[in-house]
Amino acid sequence: MPTTVLAEGGYQEFTLGSGEWFWLIFSAVTALLAIAVGFFLMKGVLAADQGTPKMIEIAKAIQEGALAYLKRQFRTILIILVPVAIVVFVTSTEVVEPSGQIALSFVESGAARTLAFVFGCFLSGLTGFIGMSLAVRGNVRTAAAARTGSLKAALKVAFRTGGVAGMFTVGLGLLGATLIIMVFQNTASAILVGFGFGGSLLALFLRVGGGIFTKAADVGADLVGKVEQGIPEDDARNPATIADNVGDNVGDCAGMASDLFESYEVTLVASIILGVAAFASIYPDQPGKWALGLIFPVAARAIGVLASIIGIFAVRATDRDKSAMAPINRGFLTASILTVMGTLLVAILYVGNGPFDEGWRMFAAVVAGLLLAQVVSRLTEYFTSTEHRPVQEIAESTRTGPATTVLSGTSSGLESTVWAIVAIAVALGVAVLLGDGNTQFTFYLVALAGMGMLATTGVVVSEDTFGPVADNAAGIAEMAGEFEGEGQKVMVSLDAVGNTTKAVTKGFAIGSAVIAAVALFASFIETAVEELLPAARIAELETTAEGVFNATVSKINVADPLTFIGLLIGGSIAFLFSSLAIRAVGRTAGTVVEEVRRQFREKPGIMDYTEKPDYGPVIDICTKASLRELLTPALLAVLTPVIIGFGLNYLALGAFLAAVILTGQLMANYLSNAGGAWDNAKKYIEDGNYGGKGSESHKAAVIGDTVGDPFKDTAGPALNPLIKVMNLVSLLILPAVISLEDDNIRYVIAGVSLLVLLASIAYSKRKGGGFGDESDVVEQALVDGGAPVGASAGE
Amino acid sequence: MPTTVLAEGGYQEFTLGSGEWFWLIFSAVTALLAIAVGFFLMKGVLAADQGTPKMIEIAKAIQEGALAYLKRQFRTILIILVPVAIVVFVTSTEVVEPSGQIALSFVESGAARTLAFVFGCFLSGLTGFIGMSLAVRGNVRTAAAARTGSLKAALKVAFRTGGVAGMFTVGLGLLGATLIIMVFQNTASAILVGFGFGGSLLALFLRVGGGIFTKAADVGADLVGKVEQGIPEDDARNPATIADNVGDNVGDCAGMASDLFESYEVTLVASIILGVAAFASIYPDQPGKWALGLIFPVAARAIGVLASIIGIFAVRATDRDKSAMAPINRGFLTASILTVMGTLLVAILYVGNGPFDEGWRMFAAVVAGLLLAQVVSRLTEYFTSTEHRPVQEIAESTRTGPATTVLSGTSSGLESTVWAIVAIAVALGVAVLLGDGNTQFTFYLVALAGMGMLATTGVVVSEDTFGPVADNAAGIAEMAGEFEGEGQKVMVSLDAVGNTTKAVTKGFAIGSAVIAAVALFASFIETAVEELLPAARIAELETTAEGVFNATVSKINVADPLTFIGLLIGGSIAFLFSSLAIRAVGRTAGTVVEEVRRQFREKPGIMDYTEKPDYGPVIDICTKASLRELLTPALLAVLTPVIIGFGLNYLALGAFLAAVILTGQLMANYLSNAGGAWDNAKKYIEDGNYGGKGSESHKAAVIGDTVGDPFKDTAGPALNPLIKVMNLVSLLILPAVISLEDDNIRYVIAGVSLLVLLASIAYSKRKGGGFGDESDVVEQALVDGGAPVGASAGE
Repeated sequence: MPTTVLAEGGYQEFTLGSGEWFWLIFSAVTALLAIAVGFFLMKGVLAADQGTPKMIEIAKAIQEGALAYLKRQFRTILIILVPVAIVVFVTSTEVVEPSGQIALSFVESGAARTLAFVFGCFLSGLTGFIGMSLAVRGNVRTAAAARTGSLKAALKVAFRTGGVAGMFTVGLGLLGATLIIMVFQNTASAILVGFGFGGSLLALFLRVGGGIFTKAADVGADLVGKVEQGIPEDDARNPATIADNVGDNVGDCAGMASDLFESYEVTLVASIILGVAAFASIYPDQPGKWALGLIFPVAARAIGVLASIIGIFAVRATDRDKSAMAPINRGFLTASILTVMGTLLVAILYVGNGPFDEGWRMFAAVVAGLLLAQVVSRLTEYFTSTEHRPVQEIAESTRTGPATTVLSGTSSGLESTVWAIVAIAVALGVAVLLGDGNTQFTFYLVALAGMGMLATTGVVVSEDTFGPVADNAAGIAEMAGEFEGEGQKVMVSLDAVGNTTKAVTKGFAIGSAVIAAVALFASFIETAVEELLPAARIAELETTAEGVFNATVSKINVADPLTFIGLLIGGSIAFLFSSLAIRAVGRTAGTVVEEVRRQFREKPGIMDYTEKPDYGPVIDICTKASLRELLTPALLAVLTPVIIGFGLNYLALGAFLAAVILTGQLMANYLSNAGGAWDNAKKYIEDGNYGGKGSESHKAAVIGDTVGDPFKDTAGPALNPLIKVMNLVSLLILPAVISLEDDNIRYVIAGVSLLVLLASIAYSKRKGGGFGDESDVVEQALVDGGAPVGASAGE
Repeated sequence: MPTTVLAEGGYQEFTLGSGEWFWLIFSAVTALLAIAVGFFLMKGVLAADQGTPKMIEIAKAIQEGALAYLKRQFRTILIILVPVAIVVFVTSTEVVEPSGQIALSFVESGAARTLAFVFGCFLSGLTGFIGMSLAVRGNVRTAAAARTGSLKAALKVAFRTGGVAGMFTVGLGLLGATLIIMVFQNTASAILVGFGFGGSLLALFLRVGGGIFTKAADVGADLVGKVEQGIPEDDARNPATIADNVGDNVGDCAGMASDLFESYEVTLVASIILGVAAFASIYPDQPGKWALGLIFPVAARAIGVLASIIGIFAVRATDRDKSAMAPINRGFLTASILTVMGTLLVAILYVGNGPFDEGWRMFAAVVAGLLLAQVVSRLTEYFTSTEHRPVQEIAESTRTGPATTVLSGTSSGLESTVWAIVAIAVALGVAVLLGDGNTQFTFYLVALAGMGMLATTGVVVSEDTFGPVADNAAGIAEMAGEFEGEGQKVMVSLDAVGNTTKAVTKGFAIGSAVIAAVALFASFIETAVEELLPAARIAELETTAEGVFNATVSKINVADPLTFIGLLIGGSIAFLFSSLAIRAVGRTAGTVVEEVRRQFREKPGIMDYTEKPDYGPVIDICTKASLRELLTPALLAVLTPVIIGFGLNYLALGAFLAAVILTGQLMANYLSNAGGAWDNAKKYIEDGNYGGKGSESHKAAVIGDTVGDPFKDTAGPALNPLIKVMNLVSLLILPAVISLEDDNIRYVIAGVSLLVLLASIAYSKRKGGGFGDESDVVEQALVDGGAPVGASAGE
């Protein structure tokens, strides 16, 4: 009889039989296959025609900018990662087998976890890098294909560019996790947390940095270009315009790919941590079956990857397709159906139908996740698409000016987040019903629902990357000015579809973050119990349906005053983070304006095309600024769990996490949907409603759109990795928090962390703060240009 | 030895000795004294000069409007109260003594609680009524006094008008509670919950209704008057302008007075519920001492009332005072110092210094509350006053247009709410430290901190009512056009001070709501335990430091999936409520526009003063509309706890409440402070900065202000009573939730409630929804007026 069943930071009792090894090898091979498919797609994309010399020149400028960004970005991140890696090492604990034998010494476990952390950072960054560097090559080739007037060809290039990102996201994600399981086996979960943390932290950096970058460049380019110099948007003479295009790639491709890599990884990590315990509660006397809980998620992932590969190739426009949406939906549907069928087979044939109908229930949880993904996507679509009432109402409200435009968007955004959270609550309710009183198994089912949501990640990332590729291609087409007739039509249609896929996948990413976070939250409890109770007591708890979740020490009681304080502080994080992110956009935009002006001043030939603007420094400065602004949000993510955990206690830390998930989700959906709705209300008016482009309504809509820019592209999406970084930091420090509970050193740790954080926040607000800063620069613009700038600062 | 110590819905074991009776009688006499002082102040105010015939005519129009509003408002509320009263009766339970004897039968307890509920509604409504009806009389008298050029005289009239509201708020509040304790004694807490619920529900109605009314009238008046007819703001020919002035009184006087009455009441109720149990845990063997915990809050309240009376009379301008701020601050300081001294004496001499230093600790908790009130007020001031950086930065950001104005205000508002919640968390931390491990006592200390915050409510309500009185007086002065020289100067100075006092007291009200809600939350646990455990087990728990909070059944464990669902839904309420409130303002404004237009069309003589506009129907329609819009938010408040409690379980209901408090507080402060900051940024520019009135900056600031209007005057402040209504509904239904846990009827109750709520939300969104609605009307305005309306829709 085993004496312990547990969690990361610890040892999981199971044995890998030949069946298990089959699935592990199958999974590794599938992962390698996905990577190979990625290379194959890449080759196809790169072989496509690049169009006219002018198009190539524009595209080169964007590529140059992207490279400059990535160089600086990774250099800066490297510096920040060193101290974080040390913390990861120091907070490790030795892993002990139930027999008392040491499975991994402190140094072994620390070294492995730190390596896994670095590995996670590397793969997450690599995913972002590949996604972006293919996107900046695919854009011009998509435009070239569109120029021939063939929707079929253009869709193929654009979607396969996205497919590269998709294949590397799932291939690298699955490969990394599978390798760690193969190498570390029973101690794998302890190592996987480090891996997940690395992936999440890098995603946070890319999301926040990219978000600030893209919106700062957007606003900055408009302020100087349109207002001061009177040149149109997307004019190649404006050095910041390229940064603007780079920003779209940075934010939407690199950020999103890394973000979904992280969600993909973290749901898998959570499932693996929870799976063994869940099966131990079902088969307390058959330790041979416990590995099922660990292998099923891996096998399900592998099936999802195979289905995604087929799905990507299924995206082919036929002659009957009027827009690109139909073939994309066919591809997604193909992948989903194949995933469901494959998962059903694995659940029934491999897991089987034991005392708890567990195979069926696990299959149902995965399907619930797939359905939730659909519901959340449809909700996002309803609240942000021009075809539904909310956006049309916002467009209508532009007739009474910018104030009512902002108010109607706010009201609609606030409402949208409520329905999203209700959908998530219903999905959790389904997991509870399926769990039928067994809490261990219920949490495993929650994690599996998260797996279901992300099962078709390969296609989702492709869809998402397709958006900015089509967007950029349209931009190149407009700048080149060489598109007409059928070619132009194809380009416009592709761009419109790209906007839809982008919005839909955003809701997806946020919804999956919450499910993943809830599953991680369960891991938090398991880890706490393991630290607090003797192995014998844990074994005893395992025989109950509630498992370790029934232990008094594991009850995060919000009716306890200290715990309630944790809840209050946790809830405020999303508000502070959003405030900082929105402010950072305003400030960085000011820096961009200064640099662009300098170039126009020092290179007067730019305007008459005798001199070329230098895109590198603009992007470099913009990157530097956005990365400097990034520090405070990052410290907020890493230090607040430390302050709460060491300053109060582990229960307050648990409530803190619950509140972080709650308000993080609420704010993320609110900000993203309000921003998306304003953006599309503007597009709806530009389509000729309420007076069309140039009308008073349009001006009001542009203001709404500018308000929404940092909402939807900076603060909103970054809350997603933020939630998970905080979860994982809490998991990492938990053993130390518990073991130092009676040691006053904990107050020193909390105090120092608090001081560092406060200093960072003060630094962040230092320079006359936010929007005021940029005004010094812009005042001159107003004098010169004579027009209110904000009204024209939209994309 | 006693066998039970508990909570409302139940019987509290204590005996009232002569010392206790002394304090009860002292308290009742003090309450009567406060009411007498109120009448005295009222007489003084009414005796003051009313100024010129023109001023009297304008004031009469406002009074007429106010009366029309109140008539309709109370009639509508009456209809809604009947079913609610039935629910209050039905959810009552019989109150049983520890000996098993029935203290109150079901019918007795139900009848008493329902009567108390009606009594609470009546007193809360009466407080609002008196506050408002005095304000609409004090305004013109303040203007008349200012016209003589005497700051001293004008301040006296204005502040004493506020003083009437203040005295009735505390006098009625204390009298009501004291009488209930005297009559029901050991079963008082069961009855007091009904009383508190009545007060809170009416405050919610007055807050939401008043908030929608005032902002709809504001926007509606501007849309037709300024844009279509080209008459200035505050022109007596515009029927909606009077509604606008009525609205200021409705929202700021009636709403706030009722709101603070409710907070005042609820903190007292929570203290009384928690006090007996706290003292039982300190003196388990001396039941004679248990009444101390109940009497101390009553005595402390009485002392606060006495101190407030002296404080109000201490507000006297001397010849050295340059503005009204200094004498007001002196009055507040006087009241605070006297409260501290008096509370210290009661704590030391009456409560004394037993095994737990309880007298000192209770005194410290009250002082912590007073300090928290100061900190929260200073934070509000920092984030909303023109003298500090946040508002100045928003003003600076107007130079880049409306978009950056909205963004900077959003960023600043989001940040402000974080510091407010940190301050509250610190205050809770102090209570935890003072409680020194005794959870029962800790919660009592939290309730006492809430008492401390509201100790000087008499002065706070006076300060708050002073704001709209001065504002209205300034409006009358401007409309009359008969003010110049020193008189005008006095009027402007008084108005500015009124803006500050209004903003500061708003932060106050919100902060105290959270503390009160936390204390109520503790009552929730006590009630649950009483329902769930046998009396013997409760008695056993009482001997532990954690008391009933240590019972496993009382642990609201957010790591449980079902409980977590409650948390998610609870967190979303504040978002949905804000969305509905903001949308309702937009829609009601549209209805106002239609009515105003009809009058202008049918009475062409209005414009050349040959016909008088009819103010009544405008206000009546506006009231009707705002009350119709009110139904959904009210149902949201009452039905969601029912859905969660019966649909899931009592633990999920507990987590639901915790999340309601959390996001309610976060959103309330965010909305109020962002709105206040925009308002003052506009004023800062009107003072001559960044181009002053009429500049592009000013236009942007006006847009920001209009966005902020429903934030700060509708959604934000109404969240305060919302939180407490939900808390009290949960307390009321808790016994039924627990007793029906194994009965499937609970799903029927939850299901029917859900259907009613969804139908109501659908109804609320029915008419083409929110801002779009008004546009049909306004489109014509745009055609006629030719200017964008939103830009001039600010106050």
